[in-house]
Amino acid sequence: TKRYRITLLPGDGIGSEILAVTTAVMKEVGQQLDLQFDFQEALIGGAAIDATGNPLPDETLATCKDSDAVLLAAIGGYKWDNLPNAQRPERGLLGLRAGLGLFANLRPAQILPQLIDASTLKREVVEGVDIMVVRELTGGVYFGQPKGIFAEESGAKRGVNTMVYTEAEIDRIGRVAFETAQKRSKRLCSVDKANVLEVSQLWRDRISALAPNYSDVELTHMYVDNAAMQLVRNPKQFDTIVTGNLFGDILSDAAAMLTGSIGMLPSASLGASGPGVFEPVHGSAPDIAGQDKANPLAQVLSAAMMLRYGLNEPEAGDRLEQAVQTVLNQGYRTGDIYSEGMTAVGCRAMGDALFTAL
Amino acid sequence: TKRYRITLLPGDGIGSEILAVTTAVMKEVGQQLDLQFDFQEALIGGAAIDATGNPLPDETLATCKDSDAVLLAAIGGYKWDNLPNAQRPERGLLGLRAGLGLFANLRPAQILPQLIDASTLKREVVEGVDIMVVRELTGGVYFGQPKGIFAEESGAKRGVNTMVYTEAEIDRIGRVAFETAQKRSKRLCSVDKANVLEVSQLWRDRISALAPNYSDVELTHMYVDNAAMQLVRNPKQFDTIVTGNLFGDILSDAAAMLTGSIGMLPSASLGASGPGVFEPVHGSAPDIAGQDKANPLAQVLSAAMMLRYGLNEPEAGDRLEQAVQTVLNQGYRTGDIYSEGMTAVGCRAMGDALFTAL
Ligand SMILES: CC(C)[C@H](C(=O)O)[C@@H](O)C(=O)O
Ligand SMILES: CC(C)[C@H](C(=O)O)[C@@H](O)C(=O)O
Repeated sequence: TKRYRITLLPGDGIGSEILAVTTAVMKEVGQQLDLQFDFQEALIGGAAIDATGNPLPDETLATCKDSDAVLLAAIGGYKWDNLPNAQRPERGLLGLRAGLGLFANLRPAQILPQLIDASTLKREVVEGVDIMVVRELTGGVYFGQPKGIFAEESGAKRGVNTMVYTEAEIDRIGRVAFETAQKRSKRLCSVDKANVLEVSQLWRDRISALAPNYSDVELTHMYVDNAAMQLVRNPKQFDTIVTGNLFGDILSDAAAMLTGSIGMLPSASLGASGPGVFEPVHGSAPDIAGQDKANPLAQVLSAAMMLRYGLNEPEAGDRLEQAVQTVLNQGYRTGDIYSEGMTAVGCRAMGDALFTAL
Repeated sequence: TKRYRITLLPGDGIGSEILAVTTAVMKEVGQQLDLQFDFQEALIGGAAIDATGNPLPDETLATCKDSDAVLLAAIGGYKWDNLPNAQRPERGLLGLRAGLGLFANLRPAQILPQLIDASTLKREVVEGVDIMVVRELTGGVYFGQPKGIFAEESGAKRGVNTMVYTEAEIDRIGRVAFETAQKRSKRLCSVDKANVLEVSQLWRDRISALAPNYSDVELTHMYVDNAAMQLVRNPKQFDTIVTGNLFGDILSDAAAMLTGSIGMLPSASLGASGPGVFEPVHGSAPDIAGQDKANPLAQVLSAAMMLRYGLNEPEAGDRLEQAVQTVLNQGYRTGDIYSEGMTAVGCRAMGDALFTAL
């Protein structure tokens, strides 16, 4: 029996409901494949603020570091929306990324044939869309110094953030992106704003300099404004996209929404070594929390990414993904992805269906 | 007879073709309404690089300053793509914005009923979409200091740009945005990344502080990643959007592409005083330059914006817009907006049709 220590971070809102379903199906898969998962729970986000005053208690970070992988649900909610920025739930997430050195964020945006009608785009435009956004996650304008709100001599204020990348930061995310593209359709599009920003010029130069080491990958470059357009115009042109932290935040969300069902999308955040963090793209949905209405499938697919990329157990990941396909084919739908003629289920019932499918 | 001095900047590619059509229809409208336009042409972009080595010759900036409004076509092309950044056609555009103090960029994205099928989004999602993006154009990360590529002690390079806004910069674009919203559906959505960036916190605070002066306008705030999503999910929720330079670059292009016909979209760039610059959103299309294939309608609609916002001649602007509606209703289409059953025309023939419509 192989054993894995998994830290669970339910966070806020629907977090604990979707994690409950996910750990149940993981246990089942574990039994089938002789894997044992030791789950330990820790606080993050609003729940951590309420309990400790800190969105990322030291203990939580220590627990995460001491595990093989971290499964995060979702953080935030109305309740904490009026706190000053430095004390808000999101800070827990940024702190976790920095604390674990999670520089590579993988965000797939894949159209599921069963849910294609949920897209606001025409069927022929989105059919077959399968994009992987590789977003740099611990650099750029999110973390650059100096930053703050400063008073000028006159007393007037200036808000300042610094968008900065070093060669080493660009190279390491570039390598992840090329390797990701190699496992996919071997097309990599690097997105920047090199016609205006010096930081993007360096980005473009370094990404280009890596290309000869990955001669099987076709590299192209695109400006971020054009990329936002092209995602709407013809998303099928993209396979793997690599970009900085801020552009990746924007473009991965735009790409996700092309599918029309962000309740289905997982993500992975990886470092050079140590545990990765795996979480759904959707938020904590405080409006439906505690009502057994949440869609647990993105969380389950995040666990599949964890098994594949974090624990190197691709067979177990496959089984979870297969189970998700099966319940969709059987017509089970939570409210967010419901359409006429399907079988409406709640969060727990969806979990039961997954269990049966396994 | 009222006289206006208009500087024409054809720039590159299809620029001179679409401007030729536009000045012809302007002259006709001028005759109808007793307005005289004195056109003077100047060099910008690649054409200016070829002639003078500088994408924005001093003479061009002086000519622009000395006029009542500037009508720009498009700049750039393959030919100049490999020049170092500081010498590229785009620098001419950035220099023009800074040189004329054009801090407010108005980018409408409106679905034309005649062209709704050109959208990649479903008809029911885009029908009636009418968004005005008010983008700050002379600040933010486009112009912030320090910027550059710097060598660290180790010799490794860092690319740096600075995203900065002062209170005064935010206030002046905020006022333009509230006033714009007042003339529209009185809904203003301010887009930022205040959960991560200090510069956005200041942005949000100042925009909020302006709101009591415009009590008829409903102000909301949205994070930029969510805005990129919501533009795809349900664009009709937006009326007026106000945002910084970089976010505005990205979101206005995404919004433009919702229409499916960016060959139709004009834009206006305005300062506190002095001439504004009016230009189509599309590029210089070097692949079809000189072939009488270009769509002149975005340029004509830019002239309409010039008449309305730049010269305070709304009646003349209305007539141009009316003429565009008429030719579309008559079924005339250039290649970029052609669909079956319509009448395919070239650039000049479209101009003739406009002329007749007037
Ligand atoms: C919550 C926020 C800080 C975060 C980000 O901007 O990275 C989120 O939008 C995301 O994409 O994970
Ligand atoms: C050409 C480029 C510098 C410019 C910008 O980024 O502002 C363009 O994309 C635009 O939106 O007008």
